Amino acid sequence: MLGALLAATALGSRSAFAQTDPLASWNDGGAKQSITNFVARVTAQGGPDFVPPAERIATFDNDGTLWCEQPMYVQFAFILDRVKTLAPQNPAWKTEQPFKAVLDGDMKALAASGEKGLVELMAVTHAGMTVDEFAKIVTDWLTTARDPKFKKPYTELVYQPMLEVLAYLRANGFKTFIVSGGGIEFMRPWSEKIYGIPPEQVVGSSIKTRFEMRDGRPVLFRLPQVNFIDDKVGKPVGINEHVGRRPIAAFGNSDGDLEMLQWATMSGSGARLGVIVHHTDAEREYAYDRQSDVGKLDKALDAAAVNKWTVVDMKKDWKRVFAFA
Amino acid sequence: MLGALLAATALGSRSAFAQTDPLASWNDGGAKQSITNFVARVTAQGGPDFVPPAERIATFDNDGTLWCEQPMYVQFAFILDRVKTLAPQNPAWKTEQPFKAVLDGDMKALAASGEKGLVELMAVTHAGMTVDEFAKIVTDWLTTARDPKFKKPYTELVYQPMLEVLAYLRANGFKTFIVSGGGIEFMRPWSEKIYGIPPEQVVGSSIKTRFEMRDGRPVLFRLPQVNFIDDKVGKPVGINEHVGRRPIAAFGNSDGDLEMLQWATMSGSGARLGVIVHHTDAEREYAYDRQSDVGKLDKALDAAAVNKWTVVDMKKDWKRVFAFA
Repeated sequence: MLGALLAATALGSRSAFAQTDPLASWNDGGAKQSITNFVARVTAQGGPDFVPPAERIATFDNDGTLWCEQPMYVQFAFILDRVKTLAPQNPAWKTEQPFKAVLDGDMKALAASGEKGLVELMAVTHAGMTVDEFAKIVTDWLTTARDPKFKKPYTELVYQPMLEVLAYLRANGFKTFIVSGGGIEFMRPWSEKIYGIPPEQVVGSSIKTRFEMRDGRPVLFRLPQVNFIDDKVGKPVGINEHVGRRPIAAFGNSDGDLEMLQWATMSGSGARLGVIVHHTDAEREYAYDRQSDVGKLDKALDAAAVNKWTVVDMKKDWKRVFAFA
Repeated sequence: MLGALLAATALGSRSAFAQTDPLASWNDGGAKQSITNFVARVTAQGGPDFVPPAERIATFDNDGTLWCEQPMYVQFAFILDRVKTLAPQNPAWKTEQPFKAVLDGDMKALAASGEKGLVELMAVTHAGMTVDEFAKIVTDWLTTARDPKFKKPYTELVYQPMLEVLAYLRANGFKTFIVSGGGIEFMRPWSEKIYGIPPEQVVGSSIKTRFEMRDGRPVLFRLPQVNFIDDKVGKPVGINEHVGRRPIAAFGNSDGDLEMLQWATMSGSGARLGVIVHHTDAEREYAYDRQSDVGKLDKALDAAAVNKWTVVDMKKDWKRVFAFA
């Protein structure tokens, strides 16, 4: 009993870490060291960079930072599958764009439908049901959907080294948040189980909802109207709205994370950690940066050099990418 | 050392409660009992109503539920004071409504300026500065402002029995959230110190902010545009957006809390607790309900009877109202 209590305390955890490496999937090197050095500094009681636990906020982008975002965002794969599932009830889609493009697998026609097309696809796949119904649709889809490269459930395509960072930070008194351009309600059904991040610590893009009574029970109904885009300049706004504190550490992988990393590292005083996951491993995952449509990393890579953010070289810094490889 | 560790655990806390009453400022009776019975049910491991700690979410309205909202909302007193503070830099306000009304103390003219007037007052007092600057303005104001009846700092006009409920729920594994129609950034600077509720667990109304770089440092600038109204049907929407789980307990005091209590208690299965603080004590605080402009309690009082929500009779159920009386 006492042993269990001790193990549950930060003190117990630190003792355990003296024996086993909390970042076991990381190769020794500058990237790993910058993370462990930062944590040592902000947790050193009486040290010049000590940060009280309540202020140890770390924010993580999701797509490309915590899980794989290639060859397309997982949420986009969900949209395509969902359109196919709903097609029998919507015979007109056989001839109407952008639905026809999805059903024909015609990615060129789909791209041509542009933002207007995407908004229409979002409306029919993400709105028109209650929040509980949508959570169930997402959960059910994830159990059957497989990615095209590894043929695995998407929730297995999470980066093992990043899971270790999440656990390591939490063991050191941090609160970990997801701050993603992806849909907040698309992540919440599984973020706790997969990342150990509870729904109240997930920040993302959202559509509007409406409270109403149905058969004497209150529901929140999802509307086809954008509420908030949690990307680029939206990320600091979303962080402020949901967290109300400035993070002292932020992890991203693309230009969509630039402002979040600026917000976390360039304001306030004291130790700060900015980390960019650079996808350099075409063999074990994908290699892409400045020219990529998905997860373009250009401005933020330049900013990393200027601001002394840590750039993780996936190929060099990670012993393994996924739990299964 | 071991003693301190034990005391920090829920087990330790429960042992302590066997000796001292966690709700010491509550008179024995139905209201107190409904709270302790609910907590006993949802924390009884193996019992039919057991709720895992992660799902023990409790939401609290702020004005009139956690602190005094009469004779006017504290945030409204802040607006009036702030206009007076800014008046010397804005000489035109001497003749322009709604500012003239504020400076003359002419509440009738102020009321006549309606929603349009309030929006103008909000714009000059709540927007046009960074979020950090606004937090400092609020913090500074609270140190000097005094309420008209008790001549106390507003942060001393928090209800001692409700502070005990917050601590009691947290000691029993609950996460406590504020869900208020008031401004989210108006509450966050002091909610942790006064209520033990960290900024990331505060939900409220908000204006829009814009990310920008100033002198090479990122700031969030507050804009004179409404972002979200966290009142009435907005409360379940705000809860879903920020918490992403349904509360199992909700505390309010006015019709603005009706939908929050419905959302918490009328959906899902298992034990639920809805509580309404009824202001019945004109001597120690204020007595008001169906006819009040501030904190009107009419529909929600009727709904309490139908839905078996607990109605707290302030005069009868509370041994004391404030820590000082």
